[in-house]
Amino acid sequence: MSDPSTYKFNHTMFRIKDPKVSIEFYEKVLGMEKFKESAGSDFTNFFLAFPSGFGGSNLSDDEKAAKMFNREGILELCHNHGTESDSNFKGYASGNEEPGRGFGHIAITVDDLDAACKRFDDLGVKFKKRPEEGRMRHIAFIYDPDGYWIEILANNRDVAHK
Amino acid sequence: MSDPSTYKFNHTMFRIKDPKVSIEFYEKVLGMEKFKESAGSDFTNFFLAFPSGFGGSNLSDDEKAAKMFNREGILELCHNHGTESDSNFKGYASGNEEPGRGFGHIAITVDDLDAACKRFDDLGVKFKKRPEEGRMRHIAFIYDPDGYWIEILANNRDVAHK
Repeated sequence: MSDPSTYKFNHTMFRIKDPKVSIEFYEKVLGMEKFKESAGSDFTNFFLAFPSGFGGSNLSDDEKAAKMFNREGILELCHNHGTESDSNFKGYASGNEEPGRGFGHIAITVDDLDAACKRFDDLGVKFKKRPEEGRMRHIAFIYDPDGYWIEILANNRDVAHK
Repeated sequence: MSDPSTYKFNHTMFRIKDPKVSIEFYEKVLGMEKFKESAGSDFTNFFLAFPSGFGGSNLSDDEKAAKMFNREGILELCHNHGTESDSNFKGYASGNEEPGRGFGHIAITVDDLDAACKRFDDLGVKFKKRPEEGRMRHIAFIYDPDGYWIEILANNRDVAHK
């Protein structure tokens, strides 16, 4: 008998055009770390996560990979080989456009929303919505290199303000 | 200055047609628990997660909501009011079809893959791929009520077999 109380929401996967660009974004801008890649004949999957979730510091990539199925919050980026240099490749749908918009976004909690947004600005990140735009002052949305939306919100904010 | 080593991959959001159907699926089939909902004028967001990730047992929904920004692995389901009874609503794209396929899936780690799949069968869940189908014997894919793909894999499996 399988016990669902032991289950974990392990990872979220989306497709990316160019792993060099995307991995640099998720590592440099967001602070995730790539700890594993897994190649098929015509694709490669890259696994990234925030290191704090592995339950230990200074683990090697192999040690992280060995623990990866016992944690949550992993991002899997799937690269179909060739898209990065294919001038006919039209790019991936972010999920937020018609027809059929379905997937919305991933969200990252940060230490300080304003400081994080200033840092994103310094790094040249493109914003969909800054905290001061619109009615929801407690969140921002940035774009990843493929146009996927990433919600940014402070981990210390008052939940009653939502 | 914002320190990315404190960031967390907090949640993944996608849109659903009918919250009654979807919440029952994610709670009954997968074992997540809805701990919060947040309504706008024409939409409601539902937040679900595995209770083990809150760092305490027997928390109230309010206590879970107060801790939600300090954990990973939350699923946000966005219901645009009316889709559940709109005969013209065409459904949401799962992200895995053309044009523009981009979003792939979410993944749940389980205690025992075969036992979990037997339980899914007993619950009438629709499979995209059973473990014994295709070359990847260590994973299954099921469909959620909107057609999003959910990968199922064992949390105790040998990483070298991937």
